[in-house]
Amino acid sequence: MICISRLTSHFDRLASLGGNIETGFTRLAFSDADWEVRSVVKELMEQAGLSVRHDGFGNLIGRREGLSPVAPAVMTGSHIDSVPHGGNFDGIAGVLTAIEAVHCLNDTAETHYHPIEVVVFMAEESSRFGAATLGSKAFCGHLNATDTEKRQDSQGVSLAAALRGRGLEPENIHSYPATIKAFLELHIEQGKVLETTQKQIGIVTGIAAPTRIKVVLTGQADHSGATPMHLRQDALTAAAELILLVEKIAGEESVRGTVGTTGVIRAEPGVMNVIPGQVELGIDIRSIDASSKQRVVRELTAAMNEISNRRGVQLETTMLADDSPVTLSPVIVQLLTDICRTQNRPYLTMPSGAGHDAMHMAALAPTGMIFIPCRGGISHNPAEWATAEDIAAGAAVLLQALRRLASV
Amino acid sequence: MICISRLTSHFDRLASLGGNIETGFTRLAFSDADWEVRSVVKELMEQAGLSVRHDGFGNLIGRREGLSPVAPAVMTGSHIDSVPHGGNFDGIAGVLTAIEAVHCLNDTAETHYHPIEVVVFMAEESSRFGAATLGSKAFCGHLNATDTEKRQDSQGVSLAAALRGRGLEPENIHSYPATIKAFLELHIEQGKVLETTQKQIGIVTGIAAPTRIKVVLTGQADHSGATPMHLRQDALTAAAELILLVEKIAGEESVRGTVGTTGVIRAEPGVMNVIPGQVELGIDIRSIDASSKQRVVRELTAAMNEISNRRGVQLETTMLADDSPVTLSPVIVQLLTDICRTQNRPYLTMPSGAGHDAMHMAALAPTGMIFIPCRGGISHNPAEWATAEDIAAGAAVLLQALRRLASV
Repeated sequence: MICISRLTSHFDRLASLGGNIETGFTRLAFSDADWEVRSVVKELMEQAGLSVRHDGFGNLIGRREGLSPVAPAVMTGSHIDSVPHGGNFDGIAGVLTAIEAVHCLNDTAETHYHPIEVVVFMAEESSRFGAATLGSKAFCGHLNATDTEKRQDSQGVSLAAALRGRGLEPENIHSYPATIKAFLELHIEQGKVLETTQKQIGIVTGIAAPTRIKVVLTGQADHSGATPMHLRQDALTAAAELILLVEKIAGEESVRGTVGTTGVIRAEPGVMNVIPGQVELGIDIRSIDASSKQRVVRELTAAMNEISNRRGVQLETTMLADDSPVTLSPVIVQLLTDICRTQNRPYLTMPSGAGHDAMHMAALAPTGMIFIPCRGGISHNPAEWATAEDIAAGAAVLLQALRRLASV
Repeated sequence: MICISRLTSHFDRLASLGGNIETGFTRLAFSDADWEVRSVVKELMEQAGLSVRHDGFGNLIGRREGLSPVAPAVMTGSHIDSVPHGGNFDGIAGVLTAIEAVHCLNDTAETHYHPIEVVVFMAEESSRFGAATLGSKAFCGHLNATDTEKRQDSQGVSLAAALRGRGLEPENIHSYPATIKAFLELHIEQGKVLETTQKQIGIVTGIAAPTRIKVVLTGQADHSGATPMHLRQDALTAAAELILLVEKIAGEESVRGTVGTTGVIRAEPGVMNVIPGQVELGIDIRSIDASSKQRVVRELTAAMNEISNRRGVQLETTMLADDSPVTLSPVIVQLLTDICRTQNRPYLTMPSGAGHDAMHMAALAPTGMIFIPCRGGISHNPAEWATAEDIAAGAAVLLQALRRLASV
């Protein structure tokens, strides 16, 4: 049975690392704070009796043997890194509930046919290297050494250099060598649907993978006092039009669950007395409906070209990511539904607007996700919060699902 | 008559000091480079027969006696300091054309009733001490010893210490002790109005002091994937509306020479997967028409409040500066217009969007400014350039204006 105090004590242990509950946690991928959390989590995995190894990307894998030494493992886990000033639940909840489930199996001395593996993926957040779920991507064999050389953080440090800095081998981030029976990830919802509908468990049917576009608008950095309005090539006013169009076009597709966000903006030279000559934008578009997402990208591209021509501002776009939405296993959706019914937990089947490591794992194995509510739908923010009761409820569903999947 | 080769040789002489024509000139106020230029300019003034003194702030004043030893002087000049990696024309053009005009009077052995004084103001650029036109401010008695103690550069060196380091006396930066008949300043336009309209001379009617507003918009930093469009409080889309309104409202007032610019934008947390929760904007509004500028500020304030209410985004504004525009002497505008017509030079009466030493001098004496074109409107940049022909044309207008103003 889930032990709330044990589970809570593990969250409390991490709550002292890389920040605090007031100002949030900054655990950027491969940073010192990230590495400190990783070493504590490794210790927690070992305390749960798991035998812990890691792959060339630094992903941790803690194994609990089953009755068959050769049967494919049932995997569960999530990530530990965070955005700047994020919370202590995003990712962490999936890792600590997985460890708690293993403790519960130990408590009752259960051994099932399949081994169970708890996985901690590195670099799930895009905050440092501009792309999300890098660890699970590497794990699934969709990232190679060349990719790690190309990707850089804002300081010009390549992902490969960051890996080497942690004693890892970018040349050796091969895919997981065995077959996997199933993958489960518990995660906070990062939205307000469960809270609004008063459900405790979300059973995820599909994941809306992001399309990410970097846009650089180049105008002319003239003197802000001496340049009449009609002689300007202002990169920032062009960017402002684009930001509003992202909102408008995504809004028109919102009935299909599509969202569009400009999260990044940098204006150069960025001083009061110079018209911005160059602006960089980072745009993120998501949908579980691939055609809806394509429509947004198409309309946005046309609009960008129109703005560029009309304003005499040069346009350069780079597609940073363009992943397809992922459908999760209907068999696991049914399994989780049965468990929620049996445990008498209010649940909802729903799509995930956010990307997760599970979307890569879905290519390797039947994959499912369990969402739990977070207060106000807030995530990636110091105010991110999930109650111990909701976390325990999610852990109970996860534990039961692991039991069922690990049986013959 | 203006001697182009003499004038050009003086620019060439300075072009070896504090930088070079490729990477620009860095002559920060009271730096070694600034002081070296100052000593060469002092030598050039003496070669033109001027008797050179300086005041407590280091401003150089070179005097050419008139027929009356007690009549107020006609003054002309500008500054010699630069921004980091600036050009060899901003300020310099006004100083060297003033010296050239004196040479011309010497060439024809003219003596007029009033004395003529060439002035070189120190510390016109804000680059070192964070405030512009400090030398002319001191000259006009609007800066005192306490101000010089308070103001510091980025290294923590106070203006007072910089003055003392050059053997000057911060306690003794009293105002100019006599009355002044008129002040003239020639300057590169630092905009592209003259180039665009193919005029050689700009006759400045007024100087547009900036109103600067810092705006902080606070929304909610939610997950960009999991937050439906209708549940967002996006600080950046609110900011984008505001940026376009600055452009639109200033555009509607542009017939009055009003301009509005958002030069600074910072979005937090500034990552792809989070809706910006907070955005800071720096808005700069300028006009030589005080009521036009007030109208823009008023309309912008109303629009900001409307955006804030409609979008549920909190608004905080801080007025960083709100200076009054300076009207230059209509008598001198008329005099310069007459001269341009007589000399058959294509001219334009126009406002100055940038601040200049002349704006302080306008409080002491009837003041006028002569603009000459600079290539592409570019200034504060190594690419800053003015042709010898345009500089000579400006010098010819200045010379004639000095003759007329120095006569009884």
